Amino acid sequence: MTVTAPRGFRAAGVAAGLKSSGGKDVALVVNDGPSAVAAAVFTTNRVVAAPVVWSRTAVGDGIARAVVLNSGGANACTGPEGFLDTHRTAEHVGELLGVSAGDVVVCSTGLIGERLDMPALTAGVTAAAAALSADGGPDAAEAIMTTDTVAKTVHVEGEGWSVGGMAKGAGMLAPALATMLCVLTTDAELDTEQADAALREATRLTFDRVDSDGAMSTNDTVVLLASGASGVRPDPQRFQDALTEAARQLARALVADAEGASHDVAVTVTGATSETAALAVARAITRSNLVKTAIFGNDPNWGRIIASAGTVPEDVAPYDPLALDVTVNGVQVCRAGGVGDDRSLVDLAGSREVHIEVALHAGDAPPVTVWTNDLTHDYVHENSAYST
Amino acid sequence: MTVTAPRGFRAAGVAAGLKSSGGKDVALVVNDGPSAVAAAVFTTNRVVAAPVVWSRTAVGDGIARAVVLNSGGANACTGPEGFLDTHRTAEHVGELLGVSAGDVVVCSTGLIGERLDMPALTAGVTAAAAALSADGGPDAAEAIMTTDTVAKTVHVEGEGWSVGGMAKGAGMLAPALATMLCVLTTDAELDTEQADAALREATRLTFDRVDSDGAMSTNDTVVLLASGASGVRPDPQRFQDALTEAARQLARALVADAEGASHDVAVTVTGATSETAALAVARAITRSNLVKTAIFGNDPNWGRIIASAGTVPEDVAPYDPLALDVTVNGVQVCRAGGVGDDRSLVDLAGSREVHIEVALHAGDAPPVTVWTNDLTHDYVHENSAYST
Repeated sequence: MTVTAPRGFRAAGVAAGLKSSGGKDVALVVNDGPSAVAAAVFTTNRVVAAPVVWSRTAVGDGIARAVVLNSGGANACTGPEGFLDTHRTAEHVGELLGVSAGDVVVCSTGLIGERLDMPALTAGVTAAAAALSADGGPDAAEAIMTTDTVAKTVHVEGEGWSVGGMAKGAGMLAPALATMLCVLTTDAELDTEQADAALREATRLTFDRVDSDGAMSTNDTVVLLASGASGVRPDPQRFQDALTEAARQLARALVADAEGASHDVAVTVTGATSETAALAVARAITRSNLVKTAIFGNDPNWGRIIASAGTVPEDVAPYDPLALDVTVNGVQVCRAGGVGDDRSLVDLAGSREVHIEVALHAGDAPPVTVWTNDLTHDYVHENSAYST
Repeated sequence: MTVTAPRGFRAAGVAAGLKSSGGKDVALVVNDGPSAVAAAVFTTNRVVAAPVVWSRTAVGDGIARAVVLNSGGANACTGPEGFLDTHRTAEHVGELLGVSAGDVVVCSTGLIGERLDMPALTAGVTAAAAALSADGGPDAAEAIMTTDTVAKTVHVEGEGWSVGGMAKGAGMLAPALATMLCVLTTDAELDTEQADAALREATRLTFDRVDSDGAMSTNDTVVLLASGASGVRPDPQRFQDALTEAARQLARALVADAEGASHDVAVTVTGATSETAALAVARAITRSNLVKTAIFGNDPNWGRIIASAGTVPEDVAPYDPLALDVTVNGVQVCRAGGVGDDRSLVDLAGSREVHIEVALHAGDAPPVTVWTNDLTHDYVHENSAYST
């Protein structure tokens, strides 16, 4: 179940020849209303692709009627011509659907620094518009895949309304978004402020806590479209929970499909003085190549874990290094900054999921979990060969 | 030529059985004076090994008469017992040399979280003291090697004085030091303030601008010993230049010997508004796994380079993303944030050294260069197998 699971949406995914594989590469998601409320969050990278520049403005008024997405080219670092390509794509969608180009969000993913094949893309958009249907969600989810090995979709039920979604992304995942495109849909009745606040909170707690290789892409976009077709105005907290749950499932699916990974690693930090402190320590650990290679080697190397924690400045995360406990998959391998239980008790070879818990014993902030992957031969292979 | 090249120093390196290879693993460097001026800089990691805790105090008064170093064990995260081991080692050296234990700097390198084999280490120190000679520098440099493939030594001549040095380190190199031990010696006459200031400036410009994998070790130490045996008080700027040059050569040797690397990568940032801004951009690029895997794949992937630059916040490094130029080994592959010269003109397969220059066109700060390595299959292999 995906973006077309909530009422009021049609979608399509077609092959336009942008991807060398010949697979589907143009997706269209349309909100048939009655409401056209929308919100979006974008990469915090200062180097942004043309579609991000366009879409920030398009969704700036809290209204959008369609999202057009293509794989096979990021349209990033393509200059004024690249921006014109995005603009023309939005206008073409607008004409086909009879809506304003300014209500069309555009997303692109693929290689940086190359112009899109506009004749192919334009024909693809025309074909996608003709193929729009209330069952088109799975095709759309397939069309946005790049190095993804599986399409990522979600559906979370509310009370008379629901949240659907699709995402693409594999590797290059980082806080404040990733090489990641995500469209969330709901038939709940929302106003623009509520949609914006709910989307920001959901991404903060989910996509922003996934950190595959510390990179931030030029194109990352998460869009929420609300059709209001259920006629139900949801309880705000219930809607927030459902939206966050949908985003969480998609974020988890991104980690599970990260390029070349052999483990999904959850780093949980407890006992920090603040959420900010806990996040900083968790991120320092998830970004350590030495921790990530150790996990690949099925080695619960707690020395590297606490040495990574030690790189966080004291004013960011106050704690006593001699108080740190580290638990890996339930075995407390480090106690009070020193040797704990026998590390040979930890079996990493047998589990895809690795749970690292670092107890700071410094305060009573709630636990924070950041997900990442191990650093493997396949990661090096896929990312050194990606553009060739 | 190494730590015993300047007058007034003796050194030794012996095999004590700490390393499973059976190679030399205990080094001793003694300053016979007449001066015993010393300075040191240590890791900025908050999780520090026992020898770092000890040596900070030992050198705190600007005086040291000997440095004892062991490979085969980091003595980190070993609790109060580990600190006692370091203390005992310093006392043993003091007794053998007839100096105060408080004037003995201790350095350890190897695995974290395991106690040292103290009977073996003590016997090794006794043997090293007996073997001390003015020709012992090369043996000492060999004894501090861990995964290093070559011993790293340096000698820079001044006017009637000189600077010698040795270092160990391969991988785990990061700003503000690395899994790296370095002893620098000089027979110039220095006072304690001058020695401290000169060492901090030299490390700031050299070791702190090497970033192999973003890690900071628990044990990193750089020590400077000044014997005054030349009887010459050097011109301060000349001494600074010589010390910085010695440190630069050792830092460059560390990069050249980084674990599993196939390229040495120099990232130079020009046209920043400040040195801080240039450094922040250079570090963001040298820490990007996507840039590092691309270099391994001999791919001058400028999109990943500018996307990494784009992760630096604007208040840290002001620049216009649409003004960025990127040159790789002399070919300007990105111009004004967009496509530049044909990237196929860049031949990375044929050169160990890769020079990336990013022109920000934002200010007139002097260029800053940070060195790193590519991310390779061998890096993953060596770091996933290190503790097994």
